[in-house]
Amino acid sequence: MNSHATLRVGVLGASGYAGREAIRLLATHKNLRIALATSESEAGASLSRVARGAPDQRMVKLADADLAGCDAVLCCLPHGEAARWSHAALEAGAKVVDLSNDLRVHGPETPEWARGAVYGLPELHRARIAGADLVANPGCYPTAALLALAPLLRRGLAIGPVIVNAASGVTGAGRSPKRELLFGEVAEDYRPYAIGNVHRHLAEMRDQAGGLAMPGAAPELVFTPHLLPVKRGILETIYVTLREPLMGDPAELWNADYAAEPFVEIIADRPASLADAVGSNRVAISVTTVKDVAAPMLIVTAAIDNLVKGAAGQAVQNLNLMLGLPETEGLA
Amino acid sequence: MNSHATLRVGVLGASGYAGREAIRLLATHKNLRIALATSESEAGASLSRVARGAPDQRMVKLADADLAGCDAVLCCLPHGEAARWSHAALEAGAKVVDLSNDLRVHGPETPEWARGAVYGLPELHRARIAGADLVANPGCYPTAALLALAPLLRRGLAIGPVIVNAASGVTGAGRSPKRELLFGEVAEDYRPYAIGNVHRHLAEMRDQAGGLAMPGAAPELVFTPHLLPVKRGILETIYVTLREPLMGDPAELWNADYAAEPFVEIIADRPASLADAVGSNRVAISVTTVKDVAAPMLIVTAAIDNLVKGAAGQAVQNLNLMLGLPETEGLA
Amino acid sequence: MNSHATLRVGVLGASGYAGREAIRLLATHKNLRIALATSESEAGASLSRVARGAPDQRMVKLADADLAGCDAVLCCLPHGEAARWSHAALEAGAKVVDLSNDLRVHGPETPEWARGAVYGLPELHRARIAGADLVANPGCYPTAALLALAPLLRRGLAIGPVIVNAASGVTGAGRSPKRELLFGEVAEDYRPYAIGNVHRHLAEMRDQAGGLAMPGAAPELVFTPHLLPVKRGILETIYVTLREPLMGDPAELWNADYAAEPFVEIIADRPASLADAVGSNRVAISVTTVKDVAAPMLIVTAAIDNLVKGAAGQAVQNLNLMLGLPETEGLA
Amino acid sequence: MNSHATLRVGVLGASGYAGREAIRLLATHKNLRIALATSESEAGASLSRVARGAPDQRMVKLADADLAGCDAVLCCLPHGEAARWSHAALEAGAKVVDLSNDLRVHGPETPEWARGAVYGLPELHRARIAGADLVANPGCYPTAALLALAPLLRRGLAIGPVIVNAASGVTGAGRSPKRELLFGEVAEDYRPYAIGNVHRHLAEMRDQAGGLAMPGAAPELVFTPHLLPVKRGILETIYVTLREPLMGDPAELWNADYAAEPFVEIIADRPASLADAVGSNRVAISVTTVKDVAAPMLIVTAAIDNLVKGAAGQAVQNLNLMLGLPETEGLA
Repeated sequence: MNSHATLRVGVLGASGYAGREAIRLLATHKNLRIALATSESEAGASLSRVARGAPDQRMVKLADADLAGCDAVLCCLPHGEAARWSHAALEAGAKVVDLSNDLRVHGPETPEWARGAVYGLPELHRARIAGADLVANPGCYPTAALLALAPLLRRGLAIGPVIVNAASGVTGAGRSPKRELLFGEVAEDYRPYAIGNVHRHLAEMRDQAGGLAMPGAAPELVFTPHLLPVKRGILETIYVTLREPLMGDPAELWNADYAAEPFVEIIADRPASLADAVGSNRVAISVTTVKDVAAPMLIVTAAIDNLVKGAAGQAVQNLNLMLGLPETEGLA
Repeated sequence: MNSHATLRVGVLGASGYAGREAIRLLATHKNLRIALATSESEAGASLSRVARGAPDQRMVKLADADLAGCDAVLCCLPHGEAARWSHAALEAGAKVVDLSNDLRVHGPETPEWARGAVYGLPELHRARIAGADLVANPGCYPTAALLALAPLLRRGLAIGPVIVNAASGVTGAGRSPKRELLFGEVAEDYRPYAIGNVHRHLAEMRDQAGGLAMPGAAPELVFTPHLLPVKRGILETIYVTLREPLMGDPAELWNADYAAEPFVEIIADRPASLADAVGSNRVAISVTTVKDVAAPMLIVTAAIDNLVKGAAGQAVQNLNLMLGLPETEGLA
Repeated sequence: MNSHATLRVGVLGASGYAGREAIRLLATHKNLRIALATSESEAGASLSRVARGAPDQRMVKLADADLAGCDAVLCCLPHGEAARWSHAALEAGAKVVDLSNDLRVHGPETPEWARGAVYGLPELHRARIAGADLVANPGCYPTAALLALAPLLRRGLAIGPVIVNAASGVTGAGRSPKRELLFGEVAEDYRPYAIGNVHRHLAEMRDQAGGLAMPGAAPELVFTPHLLPVKRGILETIYVTLREPLMGDPAELWNADYAAEPFVEIIADRPASLADAVGSNRVAISVTTVKDVAAPMLIVTAAIDNLVKGAAGQAVQNLNLMLGLPETEGLA
Repeated sequence: MNSHATLRVGVLGASGYAGREAIRLLATHKNLRIALATSESEAGASLSRVARGAPDQRMVKLADADLAGCDAVLCCLPHGEAARWSHAALEAGAKVVDLSNDLRVHGPETPEWARGAVYGLPELHRARIAGADLVANPGCYPTAALLALAPLLRRGLAIGPVIVNAASGVTGAGRSPKRELLFGEVAEDYRPYAIGNVHRHLAEMRDQAGGLAMPGAAPELVFTPHLLPVKRGILETIYVTLREPLMGDPAELWNADYAAEPFVEIIADRPASLADAVGSNRVAISVTTVKDVAAPMLIVTAAIDNLVKGAAGQAVQNLNLMLGLPETEGLA
């Protein structure tokens, strides 16, 4: 592993919540060192201001970033702005993980270079990620939903509409000052938003669920996010009608599919909760059969830390795979 | 109204969360005065310790309660213990509102006196409540769900299973010390409980939904409660598949049914949130059509304060009706 | 009281936290009706959006405000901007309560009209407020500190430096979006600010404490505010060295001075806490003698709701006095 | 370091907050492995239930504990019960760190064996700890106060009374269910307790401050703890009058004394806050000069995580010293 010890990583957008979390994780990574960190709002300040334990190193503006000096780049810039900087880093020769929404779904107008982006959910696409130069890091909500549903989708067991009722801590909404994210507005409240199947993560969920399902068998999705008065964490409570009743303990499907996964925990005796996942790169999943309904129905609960498995942690996991490093390095 | 000015109310179980809220509301009620308040754990202490603004009056133990001196009684005792004290108060000549689970659903073994209990959801059963001597105050979760669903159930529009994804603040779990309710356990967490259709409020919801629906047309229910890190409030996010698409704005059904209701607010342009209801006797309801699904589907969101419309406020509303007082007195 | 029933009040800056609280209180006031409400950011929207229960009445921009149509004005505008609008309202013939910092302390450059502003702490200056056309509503921190200290200051009992260690909920910092007030930054944190005697409320505290103390006997003050992860409430823990030991229970001084005060509660057996005051116009005060120190020393704890007694509630209390209405109307 | 790889540690009281934190830290420690974990309430359950990442190992009851199989023991039992189990572990040949209040202050009735307990504040007593078999781990409040004050005490610069205004998250009060620690009671509140110099940590603070100060020069202490609505963290705001004004930046004293300390951070440009310390074994300290007072006065702010530097983290730090391991192992 010594040969990797000098790999240089750049973090673009280091002072947002995802960027800060990336800095924190990289600061303890044995094989990577932070060669570059950018921040438009805090350029000139030390990284150690952004994350405790981070090196005393200056952040620079994007315009001054030496992308060519990076072996790898984590692009934590806002949606819309991220794509061109990921492209620039790729052109400069770096391996790139883009954490934005920009490269996850490909349409007719997606440029050629962006079509090469591999969807970075290691538990589902490990081999392709390992060979990729460009990875689109999944959204936080899709990460939990897809890992929760994959065992059913692959086997063609889910009948739609699948109801994904999701709740997220406020760091999922970013660190830019907005009135509706003030403590005085969020504390003691709880509210749905983007209700009625209009959240931008839906296209990503549908695209990936379609890829996992048997041809023509992808179920419809209904997705409702809610804002929780907590700092971190996503919990999804997912209602799935089954094509046919399952024999035995339904959790066995998840146990089987994820037996070797270092970051998946299947909980046996209770639903998943935020506390099972917050502060770690883990997804906690639990499965319950619904009583007293005619059609066979399961509730799958899944919890992640939106800033770790839902953002920076998964990005480091992807980077480890892309660079041939141990997948769990920096994440334990 | 002067003639009512001396009606005497007893509150059994005045030091729990619902009892305290009842004391707080009664302290400002123009036509009622607190003649009796019981507390096993704080007998001897003043009511003003329990609720700010309450009269400086001693609480007594149940065994020392003068039920005969009460024109009306709010029974805020724990499930299991409540029924016999409500019975005793009824026998002593008082009008009784029982806030427990004990009298809401009647089975073969329900004694004769308890069969007379009217289900106390004023927006649905106002006339019967006005003529009742004994009212079973609804559970907090059923209150929100039934008010949200009634316009669809009455018209036979809902196809099951209806998914009721609910979240409640911690006061819904009572004031007895339990480890899982400590601040250190609840803060920064969010978790489902009683998952898989096993919560005791389900029987009550099914019973009442059956009464509202057209014969044989009551939809199946799937109910999942979650514990929120807030003090008060319930938000339910309810997914309903419709028998047929609705013409026009679906909210018109709710606007029509609840036009004259003082405690129902139909929100037009966004989903309901805890902040719409906490601190009031209001239920806030919003309706959204789900996009991009084949079958017609609505999401109804409904918010209440679990201690007010979900407990003590609704109990006072019922008492007002039973005693011929203005329905909103003490609740504005 | 009927003759007052048509007094018209204007609220300038109705969509900030203090303005909203004022709207909420005025909506239940028997003798006042809201004739005007301004908001630069939400002009055109209904007051009922700002505060539940408020009339469905449009807010306008300041530039369009009909000040001449108001009998009284609550000026809830930001510091710096408030003074000239309070002046304009005064010129237009209204009685004015100004909630900003602008008129509380008078210096050599204070214009003549502003010198007439009476400091609006009713428990200390009731008679002067009743005769005033212009009242400077006290700051939230000084309100708690001055009411806590007055019984000692008047009697010349306090030796400085008096240590005022204060903590406030986030609504004290206003409703404008700032990064340091985001839920993600405030939750699970607690931090001092303006440390070392540099907070702008100090001049106000010193000025008023000087007025209460015997000539030349005003003690030095040391004031440290902290930001609490709660929505509302201020608690001050005040350390006072006494000139001489007190005979008997020190709380008797406070009981004597505040015996007739409707909004002061002296707590006998435990220190004050936020919960004693939040949601009311009350100040809760408790006094404790410090053990095992050579010089006689007291700790006075005082709690208020920063938006009620610390802002809008006290403003309504002042308005009631200025207009000859019952002092507690709209505040019970 | 390989030779240490098999040192066996026992954790008595592994299911309380301090015990769980100890398990969490030990699970990543390179030189120690958990040989024994006791819990009266959860005996039989796996350690992995107590702390994520902990080995799947059964907890046992104290009565079944094999103390002789441990090289070292962390005693996390309740005050009163801890001493005899620490004694038993010592007798069984283990090195012992006792986290309770029992062994920190020695009086005339302290038994001989307990007099050997070294006070475990490494930054002040490193050499004595390294040679000890029995260490009394400091209380959380004294840890912050003594580290904050030591530079002044050693130099005889502090004149009493020193005011220690402290605030702690709720995990400091333990994990046993008590009504006043319920989420419904703590959220949105903030309250002093043990007010007036009656907290049991005072004797410990006085004893240690006396040891640090010049003979006869130990200042009086006034200590007021408050309960914060956060899970973890202590912030102390300490007011110190100086014997004489300091030349230059007062922080230089702290910078000098703690220059080589891995777990002390002196903050230059703002006061310390919980966020500086929570989740780490760090103490964050900041020093500010008070303006506009006659006598020279400093405010020292100090923050720690009450479960890490205030309990389990400091215990592991002590254990590392006692066993000749790198002091920071398991704590970075």
